[in-house]
Amino acid sequence: MIQIPARRGKATRLLQGQSVKVINTHGQQVVDTWAFALADITEFMSMEHTRIAIGRIIPAVGDALVTNRRRPILRLVEDNSGGIHDTLVAACDRWRYELLGCATYHDNCTDNLAAALAELGLSPPETPSPLNLFMNIPVIDGNRIDVLPPVSTPGSFVTLRAEMDCIVALSACPQDMVPINGLAMTPTEAHFGIV
Amino acid sequence: MIQIPARRGKATRLLQGQSVKVINTHGQQVVDTWAFALADITEFMSMEHTRIAIGRIIPAVGDALVTNRRRPILRLVEDNSGGIHDTLVAACDRWRYELLGCATYHDNCTDNLAAALAELGLSPPETPSPLNLFMNIPVIDGNRIDVLPPVSTPGSFVTLRAEMDCIVALSACPQDMVPINGLAMTPTEAHFGIV
Repeated sequence: MIQIPARRGKATRLLQGQSVKVINTHGQQVVDTWAFALADITEFMSMEHTRIAIGRIIPAVGDALVTNRRRPILRLVEDNSGGIHDTLVAACDRWRYELLGCATYHDNCTDNLAAALAELGLSPPETPSPLNLFMNIPVIDGNRIDVLPPVSTPGSFVTLRAEMDCIVALSACPQDMVPINGLAMTPTEAHFGIV
Repeated sequence: MIQIPARRGKATRLLQGQSVKVINTHGQQVVDTWAFALADITEFMSMEHTRIAIGRIIPAVGDALVTNRRRPILRLVEDNSGGIHDTLVAACDRWRYELLGCATYHDNCTDNLAAALAELGLSPPETPSPLNLFMNIPVIDGNRIDVLPPVSTPGSFVTLRAEMDCIVALSACPQDMVPINGLAMTPTEAHFGIV
């Protein structure tokens, strides 16, 4: 298993048919997840295309996550985390933390994506809205959204199978100013493996 | 009032404090809406940033729609359409119509955005997920989404005030293969005015 250090991102190549298992090591850590087609990174996993493709806000086991060209790129094949993930909320970025009152630089998932791809010699064509694994953003009465701690337990995981050769980027969300990574507001490391 | 021809897009510059009034002329027409900062079109209205900023999926009168840098760009100041709009679903594109079984080119909001900006000598930096005015995508039981006709009535409208100098692009959605533009599945023109 490979560590995603607390507050940091990692990217990996995944060939069609391979799967990435994302483990919520301590149970309360959100992992922002992106996928880009290996052949052309301007094609990438898109939440706004996926929601209409699956007819749901939250993907379930069996669902394909599709790209901005509406082709399956990852498929959720295993999930013992409670099935609560988010597709509605942008990756955190420096402006998010500035608005929360942070006067100095704060680690953030947007910069983590860029840094993770840079390690592979790549640069994201844009910052797609991520699949926020383990993130708990309930939709109340069909409209209001809330920001709650994950329901996942330590060691629980999600497995995503590549439907095309791709690059998967994962960020252990450094959010420590709202309780999205648990009531202790303490970002932790997570892990992943290629299976 | 300026016509947005059926199945086509139009863009206009809007100075801070000016408003665009978008009129659902026949009552059943979805209008995909984008906004780009005039000073730097890589900053644009973002649904994934707006949802967390307003704590809701559907903006209401008084809400600011924010950019990918989390700054207000438009504010919803008037709405007599029934208040049902969509922020969840991507603009239609040629791949959407191919998947629906269309064998030839089909007009689509993604290409309409590009054509509308091209008339101003610009090119969209990406295709942001649009604010789909009048589009009725209910969220059922906090997860499932449905595709329903608009609830708006002929001549009803929404007014959006510019919170910064920007370019607003509007597309009269050409979707005629699912009933998102009414049960008659007949896209129509819409109108807008600068007020």
